[in-house]
Amino acid sequence: MRFSAETTSDGVTERLFTLGDVPGVVWAAEDAAGPRPLVLLGHGGGHHKTSPPLAARARRYVTRCGFAVAAIDAPGWGSRPVPAAYQPYNAEIERLGGPSERLGDVFARRGVVAAALAVPEWRAAIDALAALDWIGPGPVGYWGVSLGTAIGLPLVAAEPRITAAVLGLMGHETLAEDAARITVPVEFQLQWHDELIPRASGLALFDAIGSAAKTLHANPGSHSQVPAFETDSAERFFTRHLSAR
Amino acid sequence: MRFSAETTSDGVTERLFTLGDVPGVVWAAEDAAGPRPLVLLGHGGGHHKTSPPLAARARRYVTRCGFAVAAIDAPGWGSRPVPAAYQPYNAEIERLGGPSERLGDVFARRGVVAAALAVPEWRAAIDALAALDWIGPGPVGYWGVSLGTAIGLPLVAAEPRITAAVLGLMGHETLAEDAARITVPVEFQLQWHDELIPRASGLALFDAIGSAAKTLHANPGSHSQVPAFETDSAERFFTRHLSAR
Repeated sequence: MRFSAETTSDGVTERLFTLGDVPGVVWAAEDAAGPRPLVLLGHGGGHHKTSPPLAARARRYVTRCGFAVAAIDAPGWGSRPVPAAYQPYNAEIERLGGPSERLGDVFARRGVVAAALAVPEWRAAIDALAALDWIGPGPVGYWGVSLGTAIGLPLVAAEPRITAAVLGLMGHETLAEDAARITVPVEFQLQWHDELIPRASGLALFDAIGSAAKTLHANPGSHSQVPAFETDSAERFFTRHLSAR
Repeated sequence: MRFSAETTSDGVTERLFTLGDVPGVVWAAEDAAGPRPLVLLGHGGGHHKTSPPLAARARRYVTRCGFAVAAIDAPGWGSRPVPAAYQPYNAEIERLGGPSERLGDVFARRGVVAAALAVPEWRAAIDALAALDWIGPGPVGYWGVSLGTAIGLPLVAAEPRITAAVLGLMGHETLAEDAARITVPVEFQLQWHDELIPRASGLALFDAIGSAAKTLHANPGSHSQVPAFETDSAERFFTRHLSAR
């Protein structure tokens, strides 16, 4: 893990790093010392590790919850080259044009390829972050919807250090088997009029999650119209599950 | 409105009243003066206006949110006589024995009769409560699931003074038309393994609600196993919608 840049504003220090060829970022309180919970943020398609919504969420978890927060660019996003394995899917996406359930289906299938690449990258990042004396061994939470769930759901299924996750905006077709292996508390977001994910497919993915403690939050509106109060809800979810009582 | 008893504990004053032949209760801060938001609590079947879960919820809204809170006994519950119109349903319920979706269906059909009686009672209670100088004209919220939705959903549809509602644990068959007339923000609770309400029927009722701002909260477990954190969520929902910013 090589740190490349560090900036501090309003009490939050943002450190860019690379781990192998994976660019990452970690946020923590300027005066962070000693272990603290870590929340991983998985960005959506078209976003990257320091996109404004991710950076705002990170700042919030740092200042309001005392967590450390980390993100990495998914393969093919941010400054990372597009993996050759995406090409057939990207060609399909170009042919389809606008948003549709068929487009969502291609996103999901490309997501399987993205997850195969990204899950080991995330696990290596957790190793490196846990070794920092101002983070330590856990607990670890994961937040990510859409592409962040295509990658994050298999990650949560594979990674025992993650003990709570906010997921959603994806369907079950490509993820049901991994979902069944998840046992940690999950908050699952679904948009009732998602133009990319058929409602029944999103409900089936929630149903497939193996956890005894899981909550579906469904709201009206399209894929990108998750209401702002769900940001509050996710924060409380992580506080409930990651903060010492 | 005739007040019949008043007790104060831990800063919360509970006043029993009758309005016609309807027994009710209103809770407020001991030192309440001037207008404040009012939350109405609709009890579930087998409960009554001061059942422990209702009284605990009322105390919470009073002490943490500064609201006044009121409840009335539904026709046939608490100390109220069972309406003759319930008899065919109660006979069916006796024949069915244990919990089942058929039982849930009878509850829903009996709920239509209960609502026809109770909605005017609730509206009269709002009139009387709004005339108290320590409550005033609003805003008014409604919380009630199961029987509390069988009665409350038609009430919310009919009563323009109610500007936010927490509903749930009911299906759509008897309520879809009223649901379509609701336009205020709704938080809707659904139990994923409800033994009384088919999942598709609960989802259809959420779908039928006309409000632009509505959120479905679905959790694993049976009809009575709504997790405790949903109590927190409902409190935040009312704070968001009823408290002055």
